[in-house]
Amino acid sequence: MTQACAKAAVLVSPGRIEIDEFPLPACGDDDGLLRIEATGVCGSDVAVYRGDFSKTDLFPMPLILGHEIVGRVEKIGRRAAERWHVREGDRIVVEEHLPCGRCALCLDGRQKMCIKRRYGSLSTETTPALWGGYAEWVYLHPDSVVYPVADSLRAELAPLFIPVSNGLDWVERVGDLRIGETVVIQGPGAHGLGCVIAARECGAGAIIVTGLARDRARLDLARTLGATHVIEADREDVRERVREITEGRLADLVLDVTPGAAEPLEIAVDITGVGGTILVAGYKHGKAIPGFRSDPLFFKELTVKGVWGRSSASVPPALRLIESGRYPLELFCTHTFPVEETANALETAGGAGAPNVIHVTVVPA
Amino acid sequence: MTQACAKAAVLVSPGRIEIDEFPLPACGDDDGLLRIEATGVCGSDVAVYRGDFSKTDLFPMPLILGHEIVGRVEKIGRRAAERWHVREGDRIVVEEHLPCGRCALCLDGRQKMCIKRRYGSLSTETTPALWGGYAEWVYLHPDSVVYPVADSLRAELAPLFIPVSNGLDWVERVGDLRIGETVVIQGPGAHGLGCVIAARECGAGAIIVTGLARDRARLDLARTLGATHVIEADREDVRERVREITEGRLADLVLDVTPGAAEPLEIAVDITGVGGTILVAGYKHGKAIPGFRSDPLFFKELTVKGVWGRSSASVPPALRLIESGRYPLELFCTHTFPVEETANALETAGGAGAPNVIHVTVVPA
Amino acid sequence: MTQACAKAAVLVSPGRIEIDEFPLPACGDDDGLLRIEATGVCGSDVAVYRGDFSKTDLFPMPLILGHEIVGRVEKIGRRAAERWHVREGDRIVVEEHLPCGRCALCLDGRQKMCIKRRYGSLSTETTPALWGGYAEWVYLHPDSVVYPVADSLRAELAPLFIPVSNGLDWVERVGDLRIGETVVIQGPGAHGLGCVIAARECGAGAIIVTGLARDRARLDLARTLGATHVIEADREDVRERVREITEGRLADLVLDVTPGAAEPLEIAVDITGVGGTILVAGYKHGKAIPGFRSDPLFFKELTVKGVWGRSSASVPPALRLIESGRYPLELFCTHTFPVEETANALETAGGAGAPNVIHVTVVPA
Amino acid sequence: MTQACAKAAVLVSPGRIEIDEFPLPACGDDDGLLRIEATGVCGSDVAVYRGDFSKTDLFPMPLILGHEIVGRVEKIGRRAAERWHVREGDRIVVEEHLPCGRCALCLDGRQKMCIKRRYGSLSTETTPALWGGYAEWVYLHPDSVVYPVADSLRAELAPLFIPVSNGLDWVERVGDLRIGETVVIQGPGAHGLGCVIAARECGAGAIIVTGLARDRARLDLARTLGATHVIEADREDVRERVREITEGRLADLVLDVTPGAAEPLEIAVDITGVGGTILVAGYKHGKAIPGFRSDPLFFKELTVKGVWGRSSASVPPALRLIESGRYPLELFCTHTFPVEETANALETAGGAGAPNVIHVTVVPA
Repeated sequence: MTQACAKAAVLVSPGRIEIDEFPLPACGDDDGLLRIEATGVCGSDVAVYRGDFSKTDLFPMPLILGHEIVGRVEKIGRRAAERWHVREGDRIVVEEHLPCGRCALCLDGRQKMCIKRRYGSLSTETTPALWGGYAEWVYLHPDSVVYPVADSLRAELAPLFIPVSNGLDWVERVGDLRIGETVVIQGPGAHGLGCVIAARECGAGAIIVTGLARDRARLDLARTLGATHVIEADREDVRERVREITEGRLADLVLDVTPGAAEPLEIAVDITGVGGTILVAGYKHGKAIPGFRSDPLFFKELTVKGVWGRSSASVPPALRLIESGRYPLELFCTHTFPVEETANALETAGGAGAPNVIHVTVVPA
Repeated sequence: MTQACAKAAVLVSPGRIEIDEFPLPACGDDDGLLRIEATGVCGSDVAVYRGDFSKTDLFPMPLILGHEIVGRVEKIGRRAAERWHVREGDRIVVEEHLPCGRCALCLDGRQKMCIKRRYGSLSTETTPALWGGYAEWVYLHPDSVVYPVADSLRAELAPLFIPVSNGLDWVERVGDLRIGETVVIQGPGAHGLGCVIAARECGAGAIIVTGLARDRARLDLARTLGATHVIEADREDVRERVREITEGRLADLVLDVTPGAAEPLEIAVDITGVGGTILVAGYKHGKAIPGFRSDPLFFKELTVKGVWGRSSASVPPALRLIESGRYPLELFCTHTFPVEETANALETAGGAGAPNVIHVTVVPA
Repeated sequence: MTQACAKAAVLVSPGRIEIDEFPLPACGDDDGLLRIEATGVCGSDVAVYRGDFSKTDLFPMPLILGHEIVGRVEKIGRRAAERWHVREGDRIVVEEHLPCGRCALCLDGRQKMCIKRRYGSLSTETTPALWGGYAEWVYLHPDSVVYPVADSLRAELAPLFIPVSNGLDWVERVGDLRIGETVVIQGPGAHGLGCVIAARECGAGAIIVTGLARDRARLDLARTLGATHVIEADREDVRERVREITEGRLADLVLDVTPGAAEPLEIAVDITGVGGTILVAGYKHGKAIPGFRSDPLFFKELTVKGVWGRSSASVPPALRLIESGRYPLELFCTHTFPVEETANALETAGGAGAPNVIHVTVVPA
Repeated sequence: MTQACAKAAVLVSPGRIEIDEFPLPACGDDDGLLRIEATGVCGSDVAVYRGDFSKTDLFPMPLILGHEIVGRVEKIGRRAAERWHVREGDRIVVEEHLPCGRCALCLDGRQKMCIKRRYGSLSTETTPALWGGYAEWVYLHPDSVVYPVADSLRAELAPLFIPVSNGLDWVERVGDLRIGETVVIQGPGAHGLGCVIAARECGAGAIIVTGLARDRARLDLARTLGATHVIEADREDVRERVREITEGRLADLVLDVTPGAAEPLEIAVDITGVGGTILVAGYKHGKAIPGFRSDPLFFKELTVKGVWGRSSASVPPALRLIESGRYPLELFCTHTFPVEETANALETAGGAGAPNVIHVTVVPA
């Protein structure tokens, strides 16, 4: 490692990214340094870039965004190597959270809720600055949670461990979808598509994906991955169609993975059958859901659950699934940008210009 | 049994009750006849009386309301006796649902959701008319679910098996409250008070009950039963008080048992802590909850569940608890009316006139 | 229906079957009569035939065995038709239990444990005698649990709803197998093979099936259905092989579906990994498991659960799976016998004579 | 802190303890040092002392036993203070495990199963030697899990957080005991008594404790704490008595907390009712349970689970319960010995000499 500085894309204010350089930190016994190969663009990165989270204190700027990270371990301390079971040169992915390990949430297996520190959401003013994936290097903090990934995997596919593991976690662990059941996935973004894969693996009966007419490419990919029906919510009556498809039995599980929109949740309570479950995985920008009625919950004994990230237990099976090649995940990789063009990557992922976007990655030059 | 007719209070249209007589039905091998001792007035009876359910087809009039029923078995068929393990002269309580026993819900232990037929919600035009508790007799249909209750128990206390078993079911089975946890119960009606008892039995830490200033008598009874804190929601800031009481940790479980009101559910999402659960047990008259935000569900991974009635498994422990005398349940019994004054009973339970109402019962003369 | 009598194979004492005729019963409003198309031979039928259950009072002789029944509804009462949602001429399968519907077990969704009466285990001395599937007709008791099945399905495949639904129930509901996990299935009989199908549907990682060298045909079918590894327990060291295959992590779920043998359960505690689950689905003829050690349960926090039959909720997805043609279930159907040769059917299923037996059915001539 | 050395009781070989002195370690940013106030004697300490674990490599000698530790924080590093939320001078209890925080078990909330390192089971040859509670000081390793405890609590009561939190964990979390259910606790040691307290908090119906005639003092304390029945297993027929007490329904939950003995588990399968659960919390010295039959598991669908330690989530409610004074826990504290007499403490706890032993503590002089 002769390089002394890491180039990074810094979000200095909503909509404004500057390329900057930061010195590579010295590492001790408990931490390390990762040479990034690729970082995926998550919908939440786009939302932060647009300022959707500005009312919260979750993303203090300036900061380096990006938390779907794969790379090679360049430096690693003695105790870190032992704790993580990795060595220099190993290829790993990194979860976004940096759990303290000792709070009640961490001790209860809910590290993901220990929100103090996360990759892609710490200011560059917090030493050693390199906390995000849109950069050449990222710091491996002692509290990092890392996993080995196969050397043979194409770099841009590895960041999909985030939407795929989230899909497994939401559909299987939290949603508890059973063999033969019907699932509706509202929103065909990368996470929605991860849910389609999970639903297939769970032996779902019908897999129904809703999107907008402009999401045609994503809805097509949903079908390729195993969706049995797709609905264009701006052209068809979702309630009607679900009733039709299920012959009146409605859905066992509905996942709202649509950020910003209130209507999907209002619809969800109507298309979920007796005893069914609705998962809310989309951030609604602090807004109310004005047409939300609780009576369907009452009469049908529905469960509505918020989900945020994943249990770490869902990451290894997601990685094995990605490595297995059982799903044509290369179809996700529609756009790749160098770190210097991170703003472009975020704009593209957000739907500006390029049609047919599925998943965008940022890679060092 | 020399009597040939049963006197009953018939709801002919919202707000209008007429006293009528119906012939006692002949019974066969699979059914029976119960001589009613007392029937409790449930909040839902008041709502039906007021016409709150008029937009649904759940309560076709004319009908005899009342489903918190205790009585003596007067006649019983041979096979019914065997199936129910009861004999003539036995004292029993009767659950409101008449589950078909063969639909997917029934086969899955969710008989309560098999809503075709229920006591207190079948028209008198459905033979043999005697389907409600505000009467001298009630027909024991072959699909009835009945339980023996101690002869020594005061008659007016037995109908409390409904709010107490619902409390057990909601707090323990559905809400899964753990030793030392904090529960908030929104609404100090009979069901809210049943939840207080359940929370005590579960070893709850703090038990916080919210009500209105005019609910003083009910809030006082909540304290007597074991509530550690009561909040007058129209005089105090519920969010503030819960934060204070829990030192910022918020509640593990919140039960919204307030019929008709939207605000409690809007508040519930703010007073529930990370990973906590909200149960919605109140019918909101089909209205939306305009200020409902889903982001607290998302960020705190909350669960919101509708609950309707109870699992039958909660009835026997509720009856044993009532019989045990461990709680001063006689304090619930504030008003008793003869069948002829059922309208008065419903008005009183609905808050008209009498202050300090807790639970009202209707008894044959 | 001009026929007045039903031919049936009656087990009069262990190992002795006589062909007899019984008058067809008259039916009322609540019951019916099924013209049998095919009845599968379950391992428990063979065990009863051999006298393995003689110490229990579960199978009072003389009795007509057989409980994996498919047929056409010939007669059905008015109320039965409404309750079961079937009409004369419909093709249905029948579960073996006849749940009372009112005991605590039935009310809790565990009808299968309501063991008073079951098809294939009631004496012919109990009116109307026709309680078993090795016959031309079977009585449809009011408490029957029936399901429609596609007309187009080959008759001998329908009885497989028992091993397939049991497999779904054990692997998914009770065993809670997760995507990517490792399952070991001890015993490649029809039930073990049903578990292989269920494991595939659940997205299992490794599916390991153990059998004996003489079970070669069954182990081959296991592979065809999706088993990733098979072990001949009398030629290989099961503990060693599982350790090898799982690279030391051991199994997440082990199912002992070997009737009569103690050793599989002794082995199971060693091949199950930390936090794993063992299901015991085999009857061990009342014998002790002399080498059973509980310390592996203690140190690895294992769970051992007995399983008996299935939740009814597992039957519809099993039937849909069978109808879908996704698995080559016709390979199960190796032997078919007419009712008159029921003894031969039982001997064959028990392993006498014919090699390569998978599943045997009895059909009316 | 002028003291430079810590006195400690070192187990050099089974049955042989020597008092030795070890230098107090220097502490850095991530660790600390605890001045011990009291350490309880756990049954497992007695077993190690006797050599019962000699065939395992879990307790490498020489080692300082003792893991029910309460004390004052004497030194604490900057980062440790922040992570643990404690300061110098704070009174804390320490859990025995030192979880790595990054293995699959730790990430899944099962830190207790991360068995690499534990207090009371590390050799004094592992730096800095002070890994056990029978000493004046104990080292606070960076991976320690600690909890604040009230200053006002009598020192000898604090170590009871181990049996009480285990009781809560086993009875409530793992055993899922419900209001009104029947629990049998086999073994009236400190852990069995902790289970009695937990059962009371869960609203158990009958609480039945079995012991031997010589356990009279412990059985009496069980009654004082809330047991409804006690059985002397060497004088009465446990199967018969449980059947009698439960009127044939048998137990919902049975906890085997008897170390070393096979018979309780053989009995457990007979006294557990349909669908019930048996927890095995006792180490059986590697021996088989020769009379163990799995058929009761099969026919009654029983669950047998091994339990080892507790989820950390059970510790805070246990501490609050102890501090509340709701149970007369001072009756547990029958014997206290100085560190120099640790051998005597272990002999006494093991039943030598002193009758009426409940719980023994070791305290620095």
